Amino acid sequence: MTTADSTQPGRRDLANAIRFLAIDAVQAANSGHPGMPMGMADIAEVLWNEHLRHSPNNPGWFNRDRFILSNGHGSMLQYALLHLAGYDLPIEEIRNFRQLDSKTPGHPENFMTPGVETTTGPLGQGFANAVGLALAEKLLAQRFNRDGFELIDHRTFVFMGDGCLMEGISHEAASLAGTWGLGKLVAFWDDNKISIDGNTDGWFTDDTPARFEAYGWHVVRGVDGHDADSIKAGIEQALAATDKPTLICCRTTIGFGSPNKAGKESSHGAPLGKDEIAATREALNWPHGPFEIPQPIYDAWRANERGAELEAQWNARFDDYAKQHPEAAAEFSRRIRGELPADFIAQADTYIAKLQADGPTVASRKASQMAIETFAPLLPELIGGSADLAHSNLTLWKGSKSVATDDPNANYVYFGVREFAMTAINNGLELHGGFIPYDATFLVFSDYARNGVRMSALMGAHAIHVYTHDSIGLGEDGPTHQPIEHLASLRYIPENDVWRPCDAVESAVAWKQAIVRNDGPSCLVFSRQNLPHQARSEAQVADIARGGYVLKDAAGTPEIILIATGSEVGLAMQAAEQLGDRVRVVSMPSTDVFNRQSAEYRESVLPRNVRRRVAIEAGVTGFWHSYVGLDGAVIGIDTFGASAPAEKLFPHFGFTVERVVEVARSLG
Amino acid sequence: MTTADSTQPGRRDLANAIRFLAIDAVQAANSGHPGMPMGMADIAEVLWNEHLRHSPNNPGWFNRDRFILSNGHGSMLQYALLHLAGYDLPIEEIRNFRQLDSKTPGHPENFMTPGVETTTGPLGQGFANAVGLALAEKLLAQRFNRDGFELIDHRTFVFMGDGCLMEGISHEAASLAGTWGLGKLVAFWDDNKISIDGNTDGWFTDDTPARFEAYGWHVVRGVDGHDADSIKAGIEQALAATDKPTLICCRTTIGFGSPNKAGKESSHGAPLGKDEIAATREALNWPHGPFEIPQPIYDAWRANERGAELEAQWNARFDDYAKQHPEAAAEFSRRIRGELPADFIAQADTYIAKLQADGPTVASRKASQMAIETFAPLLPELIGGSADLAHSNLTLWKGSKSVATDDPNANYVYFGVREFAMTAINNGLELHGGFIPYDATFLVFSDYARNGVRMSALMGAHAIHVYTHDSIGLGEDGPTHQPIEHLASLRYIPENDVWRPCDAVESAVAWKQAIVRNDGPSCLVFSRQNLPHQARSEAQVADIARGGYVLKDAAGTPEIILIATGSEVGLAMQAAEQLGDRVRVVSMPSTDVFNRQSAEYRESVLPRNVRRRVAIEAGVTGFWHSYVGLDGAVIGIDTFGASAPAEKLFPHFGFTVERVVEVARSLG
Repeated sequence: MTTADSTQPGRRDLANAIRFLAIDAVQAANSGHPGMPMGMADIAEVLWNEHLRHSPNNPGWFNRDRFILSNGHGSMLQYALLHLAGYDLPIEEIRNFRQLDSKTPGHPENFMTPGVETTTGPLGQGFANAVGLALAEKLLAQRFNRDGFELIDHRTFVFMGDGCLMEGISHEAASLAGTWGLGKLVAFWDDNKISIDGNTDGWFTDDTPARFEAYGWHVVRGVDGHDADSIKAGIEQALAATDKPTLICCRTTIGFGSPNKAGKESSHGAPLGKDEIAATREALNWPHGPFEIPQPIYDAWRANERGAELEAQWNARFDDYAKQHPEAAAEFSRRIRGELPADFIAQADTYIAKLQADGPTVASRKASQMAIETFAPLLPELIGGSADLAHSNLTLWKGSKSVATDDPNANYVYFGVREFAMTAINNGLELHGGFIPYDATFLVFSDYARNGVRMSALMGAHAIHVYTHDSIGLGEDGPTHQPIEHLASLRYIPENDVWRPCDAVESAVAWKQAIVRNDGPSCLVFSRQNLPHQARSEAQVADIARGGYVLKDAAGTPEIILIATGSEVGLAMQAAEQLGDRVRVVSMPSTDVFNRQSAEYRESVLPRNVRRRVAIEAGVTGFWHSYVGLDGAVIGIDTFGASAPAEKLFPHFGFTVERVVEVARSLG
Repeated sequence: MTTADSTQPGRRDLANAIRFLAIDAVQAANSGHPGMPMGMADIAEVLWNEHLRHSPNNPGWFNRDRFILSNGHGSMLQYALLHLAGYDLPIEEIRNFRQLDSKTPGHPENFMTPGVETTTGPLGQGFANAVGLALAEKLLAQRFNRDGFELIDHRTFVFMGDGCLMEGISHEAASLAGTWGLGKLVAFWDDNKISIDGNTDGWFTDDTPARFEAYGWHVVRGVDGHDADSIKAGIEQALAATDKPTLICCRTTIGFGSPNKAGKESSHGAPLGKDEIAATREALNWPHGPFEIPQPIYDAWRANERGAELEAQWNARFDDYAKQHPEAAAEFSRRIRGELPADFIAQADTYIAKLQADGPTVASRKASQMAIETFAPLLPELIGGSADLAHSNLTLWKGSKSVATDDPNANYVYFGVREFAMTAINNGLELHGGFIPYDATFLVFSDYARNGVRMSALMGAHAIHVYTHDSIGLGEDGPTHQPIEHLASLRYIPENDVWRPCDAVESAVAWKQAIVRNDGPSCLVFSRQNLPHQARSEAQVADIARGGYVLKDAAGTPEIILIATGSEVGLAMQAAEQLGDRVRVVSMPSTDVFNRQSAEYRESVLPRNVRRRVAIEAGVTGFWHSYVGLDGAVIGIDTFGASAPAEKLFPHFGFTVERVVEVARSLG
């Protein structure tokens, strides 16, 4: 081992640069996690300096290898790597670790920091994202590669800790990765036998290598995570196994180098402290001050030049490809830019207009399938599937082809009963570029995926979550399957657009808006049961996209406003007929979208001085007081449902025309 | 094989009784899942008639074996078993399958049907409940058994399908069961290679036996699930392995007996149809009409007498035990009755009064630990732990002893990073009887456990969910760790009481109320950061338990009401000082509890005609319009948080005295 002062730094010195950036940044912030970066520094050093193909000057270079830090609390590892490799992350940002508006937040955020592929921290999800990224690579390769042109050819590397492996989502995602044989996915297990509560002997006794072999993974056992040769040999074995994903089991010491905290949970989530940092400097022979990296070490780390070369080679390859396959190249370029086909919106609008004219009365889940059937042929980037409920969610369409095949048009994912991994994998598909993913389950089981939906929203991922069986209207399956609080709860996730359409037309508009919206997720919520078609003018059809609109207006100033969504819009319309011509009915398929409209528009739909308002939705009532205030009323359901045919349940829980009329008339 | 008409029915006839009750009930309901009961009938028959120790006359007999149907969509299997074995579930209830108010809802509901231990349907959770039930048995045995007295000695049997095994929670729960060596837990895998989307080859390729061996389970491979001898041998192997849980892998045919639908997904979730039912009757030699069971078959199934004997033997054992160990017997009886110690409430109130007098300013998570430290020594039934965040959630106390030991007072669970299984295991612990379980994680990661919380509420399980780090106030960990929508979303789960206390006193009251409430779960939400003590009269201290109360009243009729929770109560109090003496401050630690108070009480706190109201909470604003209407204002946060020190984040997101004052003054 050479010392850090020599002009030819040794590998350990390169790794120590990571360690001390992490140690010093956590100390400066007085918060953070030094133990993991100290433990995984040697692995990261070998991977980044020997194997990772990336271009620091252009973090968005499409054919780059993807690097994911699933154990995201070790964010300083990633920031140190990005800084050292030459990304636009100067030392001032490292000094500002965990400060407001810095590019170095507590956990890696894909929207804050160049080179961060996905937001991690919620354990296990980064790993599932990585499975999605690797699936995206496989599918784009089989769609666009041609003889002599490996246009798409990159790997996905993911770091994960014991915590990720304890989480259930690691099971779901690993199982699918094994089934799909994602040979370009390489996961590194930071096997340090320490989690926050201490030595994992008491709560993590899995034989993890055997477990991953049971999923069909290639497992490299016994890598010494502090020996560069051992690490390199492990990676080479992984790269040689092309038909299976690989787990590299790296035995490491958390807080490596700290004389008194290495191997202990005390190094995990708190600064080492001044004295221990001094002792660690001594032990690791790192005489440099905080945030000081000797130039020879920078020089050895910088990947800008090599990255630019790799990128230039690929660009040349792409130019050749474009000459020989101009159509495919144009389509590829469109997809990686995330642009919809030029005629998509016009075609969608034509379909919507036709639906309005035809007026089918179908379940909105069926209307959803009709929308998929119409839009998917226009959008080869649309990829999706269901958590083993294809025939209930109605997510299959005529052109569906399983991604488990090597079909160039593979576009359908049989996720099995794995709601959480489904959602996180789709986030990964979307983050990769080239796809608009959708997933599906029953609305009530959005619970299982909930933090994945939140992560879609936080990351601004253009993912579409399809949730059918949206209320007690699903009937006999009973309260475990009947959503009550779910609509409100999903709407409250920031940046998440929830749609609950009332008929086939609103369903098609919801799908169109979810496809057009490219800066965040949408949840499309559909009924199991048939919903009647509603008459609309062209202007009303156009206003659906505003989230809420007047479906039936009063003569003159309304005395009463009925606000409803989904299956309750039909009920509101029937009640309005009985209530006379001073009643307005507002259909509100998306409160999220409606809330973003101008104050003028919102006032035009819900005039502030009309206080006799009744909101009707087969979900919790509390949510609707934002729209009806203290003087209005809400007809909803605040208890669990029951098992019975739907036509018995709606009256049982008070969803009748008579009740709506009575409640509306009772308002002062 | 004998025919169904003979006086000595064969085993297959006994199993066919299950099959046809399921087939005919699903047909009559025109909805339901016949395939699983048809596939698992032979396994169930052997288990129930040869091994299960239970007492149909007394479903609550404490030392019964527990039987869990984790693949709960096959509910008719369980109803058929209960009916045939002689539980109070007459044939009329079977005929009324899936009808309103029947005891035979679409999925098994522990609160609807005698003999149903837990509510299942959300896949994987029944399995995790079973792990909790088995853990409860182990712990009660090590606490109460004495030489010569195996007072607690029963098994937990759980049926699970491919769907349960695909779900991530199966990983979390199996891993813990293996670590704990739950030798009396026996799981049956219905290995039928069919899930809703068809043959599982495309999405479920795990080597499940190897996977479970990796968790430290004993695995019995290759049982023929339609051969009674093979099944019996498998169970005997399971019972012989006393130091590990056992997975029995049963190869079965879904829809067994149906000539055209057996082995196909078409038998899974829909009635077989008239013609196919006739063909199945023919194929299985079952000439009896729908819902007709020949008396010899009933006779062979009835377990009332045998059950009564088992129960009588156990009662005699208990009487002897009580003579020799009167104190232990009394304590055991108290715990299985679910009664608190006689002096608990008085002691709790003394502690609360002392806290009010002492006035400590601590983080509410610290106040929570102080409450645990005070209450837990009084409550040996209190058992809990954290998902690897013990030192953040502050769930450890002086008397904590790991359940992974054989300590008679074992009461602390190191759950590892497994939020969902933690919650479902605790539901199982509670359903067993003898325990009040608590679990803990960061509030944001309640997302991972969300459907488990919902199941606590649906089942009326007396479980306590502790969630710390309750807002942007957690600081540097950033938006992945900062809850925004979580308080509102948890409050909207029916029957779930959410508490967000503002100081140590409210924290202690919240703990007390969660312990006293025995018909449902409570979520206790605590801060990372210190919260100032609030002054209160004795009457105010008493009113905390009402969920909302006047903390500082106005002189005369209030002109403005400030409503706040948790860390924002201090802010409201400071603002009130600036706003003058016509301002009332309402502390609202639990909206759920407040909403259950009398209209008079609620009016006394929030008079209807006072409309200048400001709600302040570091969470979504929409929720609070139920309390401030259209004329009031809400100071909250509808975007994701950010990574920075907490003291920077609160002003950054507008939580300042100045803003509260300004908003309050701006109200018309």
